[in-house]
Amino acid sequence: MTRQQMIDINADMGEGFGRWRIADDDALLKIVSSASVACGFHAGDPDTMARTFALAKENGVAIGAHPGFADLAGFGRRQIPHSTGEIERLVAYQVGAAQAMAALAGHRITYVKAHGALGNLTETNDDVAAAVTRAVRAVDPSLICLTIALGAQHQLCREKGYPVRAEVFADRGYCGEGRMIPRAEPGAVITDPAAAAARAVNMVLSQAIPTREDCMIPTAMDSICIHSDTPAALAIAGAVRAALEKAGIAIRPFAP
Amino acid sequence: MTRQQMIDINADMGEGFGRWRIADDDALLKIVSSASVACGFHAGDPDTMARTFALAKENGVAIGAHPGFADLAGFGRRQIPHSTGEIERLVAYQVGAAQAMAALAGHRITYVKAHGALGNLTETNDDVAAAVTRAVRAVDPSLICLTIALGAQHQLCREKGYPVRAEVFADRGYCGEGRMIPRAEPGAVITDPAAAAARAVNMVLSQAIPTREDCMIPTAMDSICIHSDTPAALAIAGAVRAALEKAGIAIRPFAP
Amino acid sequence: MTRQQMIDINADMGEGFGRWRIADDDALLKIVSSASVACGFHAGDPDTMARTFALAKENGVAIGAHPGFADLAGFGRRQIPHSTGEIERLVAYQVGAAQAMAALAGHRITYVKAHGALGNLTETNDDVAAAVTRAVRAVDPSLICLTIALGAQHQLCREKGYPVRAEVFADRGYCGEGRMIPRAEPGAVITDPAAAAARAVNMVLSQAIPTREDCMIPTAMDSICIHSDTPAALAIAGAVRAALEKAGIAIRPFAP
Amino acid sequence: MTRQQMIDINADMGEGFGRWRIADDDALLKIVSSASVACGFHAGDPDTMARTFALAKENGVAIGAHPGFADLAGFGRRQIPHSTGEIERLVAYQVGAAQAMAALAGHRITYVKAHGALGNLTETNDDVAAAVTRAVRAVDPSLICLTIALGAQHQLCREKGYPVRAEVFADRGYCGEGRMIPRAEPGAVITDPAAAAARAVNMVLSQAIPTREDCMIPTAMDSICIHSDTPAALAIAGAVRAALEKAGIAIRPFAP
Repeated sequence: MTRQQMIDINADMGEGFGRWRIADDDALLKIVSSASVACGFHAGDPDTMARTFALAKENGVAIGAHPGFADLAGFGRRQIPHSTGEIERLVAYQVGAAQAMAALAGHRITYVKAHGALGNLTETNDDVAAAVTRAVRAVDPSLICLTIALGAQHQLCREKGYPVRAEVFADRGYCGEGRMIPRAEPGAVITDPAAAAARAVNMVLSQAIPTREDCMIPTAMDSICIHSDTPAALAIAGAVRAALEKAGIAIRPFAP
Repeated sequence: MTRQQMIDINADMGEGFGRWRIADDDALLKIVSSASVACGFHAGDPDTMARTFALAKENGVAIGAHPGFADLAGFGRRQIPHSTGEIERLVAYQVGAAQAMAALAGHRITYVKAHGALGNLTETNDDVAAAVTRAVRAVDPSLICLTIALGAQHQLCREKGYPVRAEVFADRGYCGEGRMIPRAEPGAVITDPAAAAARAVNMVLSQAIPTREDCMIPTAMDSICIHSDTPAALAIAGAVRAALEKAGIAIRPFAP
Repeated sequence: MTRQQMIDINADMGEGFGRWRIADDDALLKIVSSASVACGFHAGDPDTMARTFALAKENGVAIGAHPGFADLAGFGRRQIPHSTGEIERLVAYQVGAAQAMAALAGHRITYVKAHGALGNLTETNDDVAAAVTRAVRAVDPSLICLTIALGAQHQLCREKGYPVRAEVFADRGYCGEGRMIPRAEPGAVITDPAAAAARAVNMVLSQAIPTREDCMIPTAMDSICIHSDTPAALAIAGAVRAALEKAGIAIRPFAP
Repeated sequence: MTRQQMIDINADMGEGFGRWRIADDDALLKIVSSASVACGFHAGDPDTMARTFALAKENGVAIGAHPGFADLAGFGRRQIPHSTGEIERLVAYQVGAAQAMAALAGHRITYVKAHGALGNLTETNDDVAAAVTRAVRAVDPSLICLTIALGAQHQLCREKGYPVRAEVFADRGYCGEGRMIPRAEPGAVITDPAAAAARAVNMVLSQAIPTREDCMIPTAMDSICIHSDTPAALAIAGAVRAALEKAGIAIRPFAP
């Protein structure tokens, strides 16, 4: 199949802690093809991880480790000052923990995607992108890096020939050269399921990102991400999947 | 070589957190043959773990994961109520994290030893012993369980034919059927390096544990443990090693 | 007014952490007359506390500090081993923090109620009851202890002449001498709003607790507690308040 | 007495957590006149705080709350992104907790000094300086702000007429207009006790700060701070106190 005929849908999952939950993971796991699972630093704990991995397996959903800064209070969305060595270590730790929890659940981690403020840095900061990538490869060089399309980590992995895939966002607006509009600005977040679904189909068929300046920035894309921590997440995910399928685009994990 | 001619010495290590340290790990790593390294739940963090693993490698010291309850405030020494499923998951998480950190440091985890209150439960509670063992095996069945001599987890692993080794304590008194004297009672902790050293030699040569009732409880033993969080730890470790070597007993990791 | 004509309704609140929430506090604050607010150890953080106190003030709702064990992962419902001195200190810390946050929000803490596993201990354990009470009094002897009716802390405060009030539960079944049925047993939790409401009216009018053995255990009562962390909490709270008012019972904070 | 005849010496204290310790607080409390005590966010816990306050009382040492960012892993030295509202709340929380712990220990908080990265921001950032000050005043307007000499918070409190004192550092080099040399640069930290002592006497007698450019920047000063988390802290503190006393300068808390 060509890239226009098939795509992955991924969402952040397992983002509870102890008694707390954010998304309706059970419902989302019936829609997505890949689950990026919090590893205990910005959210998640061994019990939540095990439950999420087991449910993903039941639903035939691929799983990835979704490491973030050690910041439960800030949900991994604050840029905590770190050296690149520290970033390398916190990513390796979380990837290893996720692999073990997946083994316990009879499933297998196939990819790693950085979360929140750490994820944003992998888009814009070459040193952080390299640190995250080094960590992934030290733990298991067969793991795929799921990266922000057109970002620094994607570029790095492509140049080095490392396993890498690119994601675009159905629920975020883009500007300029294909960067996401900062959350504080208008147009940053798309909350209308129909609008998000139309964007998703448009992006896959055109293999390009539409920006607010009405440009289409061409890019390869392997996965469409849906943020799971908004009230509309489930409706958006469902609408995106339905629209893609209606357009003849198959939903499949990018990882084998 | 026979069991009387060779033994491992292990100590808990990497038991700092952030800016805090407890033991002089640099010095201890020149004495022991195995390091049981905290995995971030009762102590330790990715930076401390990476540093400890790298130093162990430099010193030719074998490394084990040393998982405990998630209890920084209690240093893993409080018995936090958990189901056995929860215990299985928290052990798997920590073992996986430790394997990844070891990979990053170019070293390799060869064994797992439960810490503190969790370790005590593996001695006395069959269900906890089984849960810890299941977790280790789910992550990597080649990992050796380092267990308290004569305890429940040791018994379990022997019966099942799982890789297992037994440890005795140079710095703790024993009573009854070979259980450690509770820390609150007199004779629980041996702080005199010479006394600890003499006990260690006696235990290895006799392959038995001396109790306060003046019995010798026979047991196989593969490692002598020294608690690293007492002021005298370094002196005890040094004295134990010197006395063993003087008695013609070689100090070697039990793991290949 | 007599005790049959007036009662307080309290619910646990502010039990989120960072980005996580449990109950719909905004709606509950329109129903209850007192809010027992988590202080950051088992749930809550400075931002959540400040917001909850400000909302309580807006709604004319009295506020209490609701200290628990330092156990975010277990939501304060696990019995973490502590000495009574440690309990005294962790309660004092949380009460002081809550007073300061209330001052910042222009409101004032009038009472203290122990949470979860710590609360259960104040019902059954004289030493813990005394430790919690000592802490409250050391911080501010004018603070009222809100205690479980017929429990150890209630008894202690009454004997000493300390400010104290008693609470009963609309959503919990009772047994024997007026103890709550353990959560694992049938009849422990009442989830039907109409049933909870009928019980509340019955208890206030009879000034007694109905047990599953069909006894009525007489006790003074100053507040009816509704657990806020169940899906039905809001419906139960609304039904309880409506039924009490229909029975001519006024809803008022017990604290001036 | 004139300012040249009397000064306070303060050090950070209670900077352990659980089983971990950093400084020899028992020895330092025999040297300093004021102890700035960690409040549980960057270090400290209820038990450590209570012990430190009790020891301070025994030694006739004044106590201050020393709030920092909620960052045990970074010891409060990382600049965690916060809104000023969040800063106001985290300071109020910690000050209230410290007051309660002091009450439990029979002592009394007389001042507040921001720690680490938060403290640095109060020197250079007007908004943070205002937020910290608002928090202190909301909790108790009689509390003194202990501020970095010549910094933003000092200026603000002076302008508003709030209780404020200024501190200078015996163990840090200064540059430019009286700012501390950043820790990464040469001359930032003075580790030689004799040099630190000579600087302290020079500063008090001249009521000015010597900079590396050989200027003396005049400033009022009420306290000399010694960082307690270096190996030489105790020697520096002892040398500073001895030199000041030898120069006829009395050591007294600045707070009544």
